[in-house]
Amino acid sequence: MKYPDTEAYKFVVKRLSELGVYLDDIAEIVYGLEGKYLPKLTIQDCLNAVVNVVHKREVLNNAMSGLELDRLTQEGLIKEPLASIIKNDIGVFGTDESLALAISQLYGSIGTTNYGYVDKDKTGIINKLDTDDYQVNTFSDDIVGAIASAAAAKVAHDHS
Amino acid sequence: MKYPDTEAYKFVVKRLSELGVYLDDIAEIVYGLEGKYLPKLTIQDCLNAVVNVVHKREVLNNAMSGLELDRLTQEGLIKEPLASIIKNDIGVFGTDESLALAISQLYGSIGTTNYGYVDKDKTGIINKLDTDDYQVNTFSDDIVGAIASAAAAKVAHDHS
Amino acid sequence: MKYPDTEAYKFVVKRLSELGVYLDDIAEIVYGLEGKYLPKLTIQDCLNAVVNVVHKREVLNNAMSGLELDRLTQEGLIKEPLASIIKNDIGVFGTDESLALAISQLYGSIGTTNYGYVDKDKTGIINKLDTDDYQVNTFSDDIVGAIASAAAAKVAHDHS
Amino acid sequence: MKYPDTEAYKFVVKRLSELGVYLDDIAEIVYGLEGKYLPKLTIQDCLNAVVNVVHKREVLNNAMSGLELDRLTQEGLIKEPLASIIKNDIGVFGTDESLALAISQLYGSIGTTNYGYVDKDKTGIINKLDTDDYQVNTFSDDIVGAIASAAAAKVAHDHS
Repeated sequence: MKYPDTEAYKFVVKRLSELGVYLDDIAEIVYGLEGKYLPKLTIQDCLNAVVNVVHKREVLNNAMSGLELDRLTQEGLIKEPLASIIKNDIGVFGTDESLALAISQLYGSIGTTNYGYVDKDKTGIINKLDTDDYQVNTFSDDIVGAIASAAAAKVAHDHS
Repeated sequence: MKYPDTEAYKFVVKRLSELGVYLDDIAEIVYGLEGKYLPKLTIQDCLNAVVNVVHKREVLNNAMSGLELDRLTQEGLIKEPLASIIKNDIGVFGTDESLALAISQLYGSIGTTNYGYVDKDKTGIINKLDTDDYQVNTFSDDIVGAIASAAAAKVAHDHS
Repeated sequence: MKYPDTEAYKFVVKRLSELGVYLDDIAEIVYGLEGKYLPKLTIQDCLNAVVNVVHKREVLNNAMSGLELDRLTQEGLIKEPLASIIKNDIGVFGTDESLALAISQLYGSIGTTNYGYVDKDKTGIINKLDTDDYQVNTFSDDIVGAIASAAAAKVAHDHS
Repeated sequence: MKYPDTEAYKFVVKRLSELGVYLDDIAEIVYGLEGKYLPKLTIQDCLNAVVNVVHKREVLNNAMSGLELDRLTQEGLIKEPLASIIKNDIGVFGTDESLALAISQLYGSIGTTNYGYVDKDKTGIINKLDTDDYQVNTFSDDIVGAIASAAAAKVAHDHS
């Protein structure tokens, strides 16, 4: 079986948009992370980096898996006790961060430290996902944070 | 919400047994990895290390998530193209290894290199899971390999 | 050769003290990270966790390697271009964070995200190391941040 | 300070050649890892991938740091107990694998599992480094293994 690059990319972009997240929102987090260090950086550079990151297969695979785990929890298809752990987004879960770190590590240690910061700071669209009371976003907010962190690391390398 | 330690442990042990995997099978892989270096090591030491590893929360969480993704794929509840990618266990997926590495890294770099070896060598019960044509075991074989690798690292540290 | 646990521990504690860093300073960073979430947490709990972390062999090994690389750079014993890269602590180096992440990952994804945050936020003694103009602290500040992050993850797990 | 890309690349290639390691030797390990899965793969493809990997900054930085730690240990410039731990390449050290994993993780989970396998299997030039009684190669063999594993992952992605 050949890897379905186009379908995987479309799946992730579509599912994120259903959650109210657009690649432009992620580009804004990237700009927030790197703009102060790179005076020539534009929002368009950040968006290009996000699009580039979201085309990587391992990014797509971890993103799809996390997004599906959120959806399946929301729809009551995950067994206990995992369902309650995900629904409550409890602090010692860590699997959401595991998938996110697998994304950010592809962009080296800057990617990984960026993700750790974003995970605590929760700016922009990540905060909106994290505080949404109607939808299970346990994995989604980390996936979005990891994509932003990876794109920020890419932008930092490209501009130095 | 308090973390449900006992239910999570029971879930993982029960689900593995439904797949034909017992903690004793994992202990045998541990013995195969470390027995040659540690002449005093017994199968009982290996089983104790496996039981110890499977009580760690982050091990349980990654194991539950992987086991559920296999089950949900088997039952046709995962959307495309992720369903086909998991069903075909294609080489460039990587999310199964991401969850497994998150387990083995808890036991340091020995845990991680052990897992890389086990993932290629596929001895014992891992081979049985990997070649089962009737069941989706894309995540399960990696989870089992990671638990074995983590327990092998624990045994190596405790005996040196 | 048997692993020299006691000498390694003494080496790290002594070298940190020569840099003006005491385990109590690290305990304060731990309290800063976790105190707001864990109302019963005391500074003494944090110090106990730090001492516990600093006894782990893989922590000691990565710490000694980083501390020696700083000292050898300071003393002019590292070859170019690595010497200048370390002396200038340039943003795209990443090896300092690699050693630090190897420490924090032993405490799971909470350890790793904590470290990413601390690496940007640079509170307390880390800031003092980072802004010292007379000494090469490229690795030291990350080692200290990683020990604090690992201890914070330990405290979070133990109290939940 | 601008990152010295050319000097760093030259440093690594020159130091490896002093240890008797040429990029062609690494390309052969890559072919050994991937040739059986990719019938159209040539040694030239493998060499191209190795050259590409060795141009990445984070690869160069971790490689330079590991190679210098070996040299400094050989020349008696590292303090005890770290000197003896490195000289004896003791199994529970792990810092050599930490630097190597930081390289292989840049190429995703295939890179990392490849490295774990290579680290145990020790084929080709890695075996020669590992069994050299006159030179300290504690970090060097892992750096070479990680570069080979990263290049193998790159080749696997490019050909699938």
